[in-house]
Amino acid sequence: MKAARLHEFHRPLVVEEVPDPKVSSPFDVVVRVGAAGLCRTDLHIREGQFEEAQKEAGLSLPYSPGHENAGWVAAVGEAVTNVDVGDKVILHPLITCGLCRACRDGDDVHCDRSVFPGLFAPGGFAEYLLTGARSVIKIDDSLEPVDVAPLADAGLTAYHAIKKALPLLYPGTTCVVIGAGGLGHIGIQCLRAMSSSRIVVLDSNSAALALATEWGADETILVDGDQVRAVQHVTLGRGAEVVLDFVGESGAEKWGVDLLKRKGYYFVIGYGGSLDVPTMQIILTEINFIGNLVGSYNDLVELMELASLGKVKLHTSSYPLDDVNRAIEDLDNGRLRGRGILVP
Amino acid sequence: MKAARLHEFHRPLVVEEVPDPKVSSPFDVVVRVGAAGLCRTDLHIREGQFEEAQKEAGLSLPYSPGHENAGWVAAVGEAVTNVDVGDKVILHPLITCGLCRACRDGDDVHCDRSVFPGLFAPGGFAEYLLTGARSVIKIDDSLEPVDVAPLADAGLTAYHAIKKALPLLYPGTTCVVIGAGGLGHIGIQCLRAMSSSRIVVLDSNSAALALATEWGADETILVDGDQVRAVQHVTLGRGAEVVLDFVGESGAEKWGVDLLKRKGYYFVIGYGGSLDVPTMQIILTEINFIGNLVGSYNDLVELMELASLGKVKLHTSSYPLDDVNRAIEDLDNGRLRGRGILVP
Amino acid sequence: MKAARLHEFHRPLVVEEVPDPKVSSPFDVVVRVGAAGLCRTDLHIREGQFEEAQKEAGLSLPYSPGHENAGWVAAVGEAVTNVDVGDKVILHPLITCGLCRACRDGDDVHCDRSVFPGLFAPGGFAEYLLTGARSVIKIDDSLEPVDVAPLADAGLTAYHAIKKALPLLYPGTTCVVIGAGGLGHIGIQCLRAMSSSRIVVLDSNSAALALATEWGADETILVDGDQVRAVQHVTLGRGAEVVLDFVGESGAEKWGVDLLKRKGYYFVIGYGGSLDVPTMQIILTEINFIGNLVGSYNDLVELMELASLGKVKLHTSSYPLDDVNRAIEDLDNGRLRGRGILVP
Amino acid sequence: MKAARLHEFHRPLVVEEVPDPKVSSPFDVVVRVGAAGLCRTDLHIREGQFEEAQKEAGLSLPYSPGHENAGWVAAVGEAVTNVDVGDKVILHPLITCGLCRACRDGDDVHCDRSVFPGLFAPGGFAEYLLTGARSVIKIDDSLEPVDVAPLADAGLTAYHAIKKALPLLYPGTTCVVIGAGGLGHIGIQCLRAMSSSRIVVLDSNSAALALATEWGADETILVDGDQVRAVQHVTLGRGAEVVLDFVGESGAEKWGVDLLKRKGYYFVIGYGGSLDVPTMQIILTEINFIGNLVGSYNDLVELMELASLGKVKLHTSSYPLDDVNRAIEDLDNGRLRGRGILVP
Repeated sequence: MKAARLHEFHRPLVVEEVPDPKVSSPFDVVVRVGAAGLCRTDLHIREGQFEEAQKEAGLSLPYSPGHENAGWVAAVGEAVTNVDVGDKVILHPLITCGLCRACRDGDDVHCDRSVFPGLFAPGGFAEYLLTGARSVIKIDDSLEPVDVAPLADAGLTAYHAIKKALPLLYPGTTCVVIGAGGLGHIGIQCLRAMSSSRIVVLDSNSAALALATEWGADETILVDGDQVRAVQHVTLGRGAEVVLDFVGESGAEKWGVDLLKRKGYYFVIGYGGSLDVPTMQIILTEINFIGNLVGSYNDLVELMELASLGKVKLHTSSYPLDDVNRAIEDLDNGRLRGRGILVP
Repeated sequence: MKAARLHEFHRPLVVEEVPDPKVSSPFDVVVRVGAAGLCRTDLHIREGQFEEAQKEAGLSLPYSPGHENAGWVAAVGEAVTNVDVGDKVILHPLITCGLCRACRDGDDVHCDRSVFPGLFAPGGFAEYLLTGARSVIKIDDSLEPVDVAPLADAGLTAYHAIKKALPLLYPGTTCVVIGAGGLGHIGIQCLRAMSSSRIVVLDSNSAALALATEWGADETILVDGDQVRAVQHVTLGRGAEVVLDFVGESGAEKWGVDLLKRKGYYFVIGYGGSLDVPTMQIILTEINFIGNLVGSYNDLVELMELASLGKVKLHTSSYPLDDVNRAIEDLDNGRLRGRGILVP
Repeated sequence: MKAARLHEFHRPLVVEEVPDPKVSSPFDVVVRVGAAGLCRTDLHIREGQFEEAQKEAGLSLPYSPGHENAGWVAAVGEAVTNVDVGDKVILHPLITCGLCRACRDGDDVHCDRSVFPGLFAPGGFAEYLLTGARSVIKIDDSLEPVDVAPLADAGLTAYHAIKKALPLLYPGTTCVVIGAGGLGHIGIQCLRAMSSSRIVVLDSNSAALALATEWGADETILVDGDQVRAVQHVTLGRGAEVVLDFVGESGAEKWGVDLLKRKGYYFVIGYGGSLDVPTMQIILTEINFIGNLVGSYNDLVELMELASLGKVKLHTSSYPLDDVNRAIEDLDNGRLRGRGILVP
Repeated sequence: MKAARLHEFHRPLVVEEVPDPKVSSPFDVVVRVGAAGLCRTDLHIREGQFEEAQKEAGLSLPYSPGHENAGWVAAVGEAVTNVDVGDKVILHPLITCGLCRACRDGDDVHCDRSVFPGLFAPGGFAEYLLTGARSVIKIDDSLEPVDVAPLADAGLTAYHAIKKALPLLYPGTTCVVIGAGGLGHIGIQCLRAMSSSRIVVLDSNSAALALATEWGADETILVDGDQVRAVQHVTLGRGAEVVLDFVGESGAEKWGVDLLKRKGYYFVIGYGGSLDVPTMQIILTEINFIGNLVGSYNDLVELMELASLGKVKLHTSSYPLDDVNRAIEDLDNGRLRGRGILVP
């Protein structure tokens, strides 16, 4: 098959012929890739930021990145009962064991023995991809791989955080969304579909804020140094019950905390910076910080339901797999509109 | 009446005659103080750490500290229906409005208009104290004010945090308790009374650890620089589902975070230091940080139930109100065993 | 003031002059009634179905019914701080004590000492009504008493049940609504505003089903004897995660149970019939039955937020208070479209 | 191997030689049975009460009952990674798929494709038993199969219901336990280990009540016709926050409902009778009825933790497998003390 592989860090990927992946254990599933999302993490991989971790996981170059995948089942192991060859599927990003406490509690991402294709095993920048029976979700006839692939990771991460926040978001509350980019734009749509909380979106980009209104934001506020005062203004000085921080760096993780109401919840989703909060402040206002890591298989099933209802739509730009390096450059240079998608 | 009042910061309190507090609004309750707990916060008050905040709240010297109070109802306003003169009561530390959203959700400490006797209004280092109908809890015949006063704040804070943690503490989990002091020793007893989770107690004082075992700890670990490795050892390298940090300073709030299991919860209860955690770490392990502020009236009712069942017992040393300054010195110099209690 | 009072069971109300209610205790609030909803319960009152209970509560004829009230604050007791004379308000149906465990947990309807104007005390079929500070909610400028009065009870009951059901109604689930009448039509709008669950509405009236689609139903099914099979058909034989039974009589409470999926929840809201379910069936499918009684003050605040957002709208027909008996007859004879509202 | 098989309904089992079960699919596990609990359900099986259901499931006579099993792993399929040959294990009663929504939510008993050995497939009244990797739990060295086998089903059912009830059982609440028999005696111990709620146990057998006190009951009440009044007496007329009905027949499911406090929860665990409750009563008191079906794999892991801590102990009587019919007769005639256990 054709695959785009990283042979050397800091260098372009090489599109080349490699052997097809094969079913070798009873729960294996081989998927013909229909679309693979391009993610900022792929830039970090190319820069070697995961070199150590990949070595520890036993992955050596060359290999294909690509962890947001959708396509069609091409082959299944003998014990696979939930999909058939030809089924149109999206892939949960992890291959999980199904036997540990976490798997048995629905917390797939905390599986004791998970494998992460695209990061620590060959990924979806290729014509075929090896995954497992526990990772494939049949999608609605109305959806195509190229329309949904980025929901597998970026979308799932946003959905997972929002589902955890929903019990806090009754009518009359305010939910601040920091960052209306790749994850945020899905998050806003999920919030709109599942709550009547007031959605206040903050971004440093006016164009993103204009789109946020289309996706369902009630208020938008430009991050221009005055944003904390602006949020206090629209919340009558009380702050927000929930802050969803899709940025997590560049200072957002500092001023974002000042947007919280007493007893508020700060959802850490984006990353890069550090939380730095006096315990005195945490206690006097009884605020909380909630970590978020991708999402479960069932979360992804639910998100696909929102997609099939037309309630969550992605902004995407597609590239043929042969143009993978052009797509990467466009992403790196800010020329890519919406999520980039590679089509083998 | 006799009252011990602070006339000047950094100076001893003065025991003197002052007018009795009077009922002036329909929900007022005057309590004859039977016992008032002495708390490290009272040292901070004497040092003037709350000077600014007290001014803002309209409180000026001289005044009586004392925010952990129990006694007998001495007089009630016309609209008070829940207690009668003579009733033996413990006092929730706040006087609350009963009308705001927080009060109506059972979150007394987030009341929009609360008053805090002892900190921002005259407190319990006196023969009588003014509080409100919403702050008094009748206690069991078997309990005496001198036995329970510190449960009003120190105990309530520990109970509140543990009640929030309980759903995470099913059999087979590990709960790390950092600090077996004033709050911790109540917390350990509450945990033992309401869960079968393994309780691992950390303290820098061996004597406190010996007592912790009596209160119900399953394991005790000396904080000697090797405590993180020791916790990893007893949890087979996985860490703890829950960490209750009753210290919150002196580095505990740093190494304490390393005790968490994936998806673990860190309860911030003690204070002084700062949380400082990379968002990358929060996300990769999906950990959470939960603020805790005193507790609700209903929490205190439940804690008094544990006390009346004999499941929570306090270590105390009593002083006559006249000896208030000796008690404060003993606390300041580490000579006070257990919680100090002033008896008017 | 003018009031419509019941002097004798089974007889028309008498519109007459009576003394105005007066503030007599510190938390009293007198409201000038702007609109009072007419409810089927008022028919039952007229028939004497509550005669016994009213006697026990110390209520004797003549008195004014009317338990769904909105208007303007006319006078307040000395301790009232949350509203001022002139404020536009809707009234929670109960006057509550604010001191018992239930009140302090936000469960207003389980208050140990509640008073229920309209049922067990003089109600809103009058120019003025006596209530308490804990029962008044200021409403948005954009809303008028005549538009919202029935939300005080009918709407609140629907909202309360749905809020309890929401955690079960993630995307991909099915919520069956039995009954698209007074409560159901509000319930459907609340569901649509707060979830993306599929809403399947059952009613024996085709006209009601047509409206249900406008309010947000995804599927409508006529109750014609074949409704259980029809629901099984649209749920692929699995049944619904949630059934909201706004009828509770005439057999709905029997066949409704057969609509449940394994581990499903049956919300009993309407009443009249009896649940009759073999324990064997309850156990083998692990189904649940949830009682629902009106709702809390905070629930009503949230519902008013949905109303001010335009997400919940009432179908109403207004009558002057002088025409109260005509309104009652219209309701009794099925000639009343939407909820009836009396305007003093 | 030796197996005790039912050849004909209403007739004794036949102890005979049959072929050993073999591993045939990748996740199969063969267990050498160390102990198999004898359950009242086995009497119902012998009477043919499950004849229809067994036919539908494709099971035909002769076959071995036995659904409460513990022992040692004897052989494993190629994909099994969680146990090794020789491991000492207890068996979750169901073999589950691990792929359906329920399995992925931790709700093993609602698996779309589960198999139930002992009821719908060959069970543990034999020297060897075929199960799956998802059904085996390694047990602590300190525990032996003969000590724990009945925890696999009877114990699990009690634990599961109690875990669901725990959030309702804060200090000061009352939990009524109806039935101190096979499930109840485990339930009482679980309650005592995980809560400080007051436990009030009702049974028609005084000897059982005496034991209940040893297991942790705070109050015991004889079911003698006056039990409702007695419960109202000890709850000061308020009723119990939680009723755990381990009987579910013979009238308990009728008078049991009268023991509930307003907003109380009735856990249906035992079965045989029918719930029959007016919807008016359900609504006016906002009571709830919760179905309970066995429990999850993770529940069983937690229960085994309580067992290894010595907090849950079983009363048992052992019989050699050859004496299976004597054991059955003893159970049928009420001569069996504690749970009966067959040892191959």
